[in-house]
Amino acid sequence: MFPEEMEKRRAVEDKLRDVVESFGYGEVLTPTFEHTQLFLEKSGPSIIEEIYAFEDKGGREIALRPEFTASVMRLYHEGMRERPKPLKLYYFGSVFRYERPQAGRYREFWHFGTELIGPDTPKADAENIALAYTCVKETGLKDFLLRISNLKILYTYLDEKGIPDQEKKEVFHMIDKEEHDELMEYTFGAELIEVLGSNLEDIKDHLDDSGPVDDLLNVLDVLELYGISKEDYEIDLSTVRGLDYYQGVVFEIDAGGLGAEKQICGGGDYQLGSIFGTDVSAKGFAFGFDRVLLALGEDLNLDKKPRCYLIPIGVESEGYCYELMKDMREEGLVIDIELMERGIGKALSYADRAGFDFAFLIGEDEINKSTVSVKNMKSGDQENVPLEDVGSFVREHHEDQ
Amino acid sequence: MFPEEMEKRRAVEDKLRDVVESFGYGEVLTPTFEHTQLFLEKSGPSIIEEIYAFEDKGGREIALRPEFTASVMRLYHEGMRERPKPLKLYYFGSVFRYERPQAGRYREFWHFGTELIGPDTPKADAENIALAYTCVKETGLKDFLLRISNLKILYTYLDEKGIPDQEKKEVFHMIDKEEHDELMEYTFGAELIEVLGSNLEDIKDHLDDSGPVDDLLNVLDVLELYGISKEDYEIDLSTVRGLDYYQGVVFEIDAGGLGAEKQICGGGDYQLGSIFGTDVSAKGFAFGFDRVLLALGEDLNLDKKPRCYLIPIGVESEGYCYELMKDMREEGLVIDIELMERGIGKALSYADRAGFDFAFLIGEDEINKSTVSVKNMKSGDQENVPLEDVGSFVREHHEDQ
Repeated sequence: MFPEEMEKRRAVEDKLRDVVESFGYGEVLTPTFEHTQLFLEKSGPSIIEEIYAFEDKGGREIALRPEFTASVMRLYHEGMRERPKPLKLYYFGSVFRYERPQAGRYREFWHFGTELIGPDTPKADAENIALAYTCVKETGLKDFLLRISNLKILYTYLDEKGIPDQEKKEVFHMIDKEEHDELMEYTFGAELIEVLGSNLEDIKDHLDDSGPVDDLLNVLDVLELYGISKEDYEIDLSTVRGLDYYQGVVFEIDAGGLGAEKQICGGGDYQLGSIFGTDVSAKGFAFGFDRVLLALGEDLNLDKKPRCYLIPIGVESEGYCYELMKDMREEGLVIDIELMERGIGKALSYADRAGFDFAFLIGEDEINKSTVSVKNMKSGDQENVPLEDVGSFVREHHEDQ
Repeated sequence: MFPEEMEKRRAVEDKLRDVVESFGYGEVLTPTFEHTQLFLEKSGPSIIEEIYAFEDKGGREIALRPEFTASVMRLYHEGMRERPKPLKLYYFGSVFRYERPQAGRYREFWHFGTELIGPDTPKADAENIALAYTCVKETGLKDFLLRISNLKILYTYLDEKGIPDQEKKEVFHMIDKEEHDELMEYTFGAELIEVLGSNLEDIKDHLDDSGPVDDLLNVLDVLELYGISKEDYEIDLSTVRGLDYYQGVVFEIDAGGLGAEKQICGGGDYQLGSIFGTDVSAKGFAFGFDRVLLALGEDLNLDKKPRCYLIPIGVESEGYCYELMKDMREEGLVIDIELMERGIGKALSYADRAGFDFAFLIGEDEINKSTVSVKNMKSGDQENVPLEDVGSFVREHHEDQ
């Protein structure tokens, strides 16, 4: 990735960091590879097809991480279990999947996500969703859709219809893939399809135990306190999440304009303590960072610093130039000096082609008068500016460029 | 890595970024793994012993990057060759070596570094060194030593003694390992050992061609313009760098207190175009980021934001609380709300154990008076603060904590 792209990525990363840190989340970092077993235990044996797994020189089976949650939960169980709850963690890094690269899907891509460990309350579910929502808002993305569900509603419905646990997963799969013909093979198929399209109050009529619906309504009440209202999301029971470790309230965020790969965030309430022998409650989400960038496209507003290029004329001026550079850099400006011993014409042409905003020309005359000849590379104007005003001069004129 | 550690790492990373960006460097990112062949071409076949190399499912030989320079130069040759020179790039990310982990040496560790592509002038060498030096200064590290050399001085000396190129590498190896007994087997052994300990003017007496010495003196003259003087570095011809692609002016920075693994930075002038079929000039350096952190130890000063914990008393107060949280977060403060439906006593005990600086207690009384009861968790003092003053109140009292 080239500097123009990295500048955008770091700007979005900084925004996401600021949001999650303001909510009290602290960053953790886990290794790029782990024992393959960890990922198998979390996601089942079929994950092996999708990951980069190999044997190291010591004969250990290791794999490049396909996501962070398993690693963060391992870190929690190995070194943070005794910490007071709730424990709020976030991460940012690259993950790896062995699949055919396509737009918005690469073999190495980036996840930004959080884990909220400990609390299992409507407030905790609501914070989890509100945090993801606030993150999206802060990136500046306008065209997006938040979809919320509670997996326990469908679990309970299928329970009441006498469907055993293993078969529930198959039904969830049909719902996810919108295979309505196959759903219709169940006696309750038509009713289930109706339920999927109903609002929460109507869904209660189809359930003996309406507890899971009330749980979700409680979460939505807290979301309202965050200023996230009915108009800001959809209730969508077919939001079933691909991974089968989710168990309660879940959500997804889609971005417009991304086509089939429109999901930029997914998360919810999950259970991952059991593979470590605990029953700790956890909620979290992960952003597909590269897709967020794709979705933002040209919308992204970058605060660019003025970039200046200094051309010394005659060796005598160099002490003056290096002094000026030091001051300007300490003031937070970006400044380069001609390094290739080119004449003024060639150096100015470089400054133009390399996209500098200002060129500083400094010769005997400037030194005697304690000034700098500042050339605005966009307008072509050149002006003699007193040394002490150069910083504010370029800042002001940069805003007008 | 836990949040306390990550906070330090990001603080140092930000300082390094600020410095290199103020010098006009732009960030690039390369993949975590590359075709193994790239690293073999750069570093020779023996590198295979030290890297994580494996075959992917498509039968491709790939390896986790052991460093960034080869990848950045690949990126340059594939996508940035046409850009105006100088081209200034930097990177930050993890690299991998298959070796026994020990203090300051891990199997996955982090590099922060730069590449200055294009210019081959004393000013460019000096900028490269001055940039690394400024980076170290900005981290706040006090006990460090910059050592500078020009590999061409010893190359020329050995040339003049009739030593063929292949054998030169062996002599360099002896110098690096301080194997003086083996050096003494050469007829010029005693003279060489004397040269290694001499100052630059005296070294000239041992050379027919003193050009390489003059080149280094020119670089030192420019360093002086950066305010880096004789007292700030050592000239040390035994700085030969482990990698054999370096060719001109090189340098290393050691930190005190790190024992045998004291080198935190290495860099210089190198040749890496030939494996891509060009002769582009390049200079750069890389910091062992983890070692910088180790060297900084407790010296690191972090600007910590005040962390606040909000405890609503009675459900009626929650709208007021969520409003306040939103405002405080937008002001840049870190604020959490009690998520586990605990009573005041347990919630305050959590706030204490989790290291919060302030607890906010909000009940009917506070809402009626538009105030917040702020408890200073360090002093134990509690005070009723008007809503509009809460932000400034915690900032002020945080400074005194």
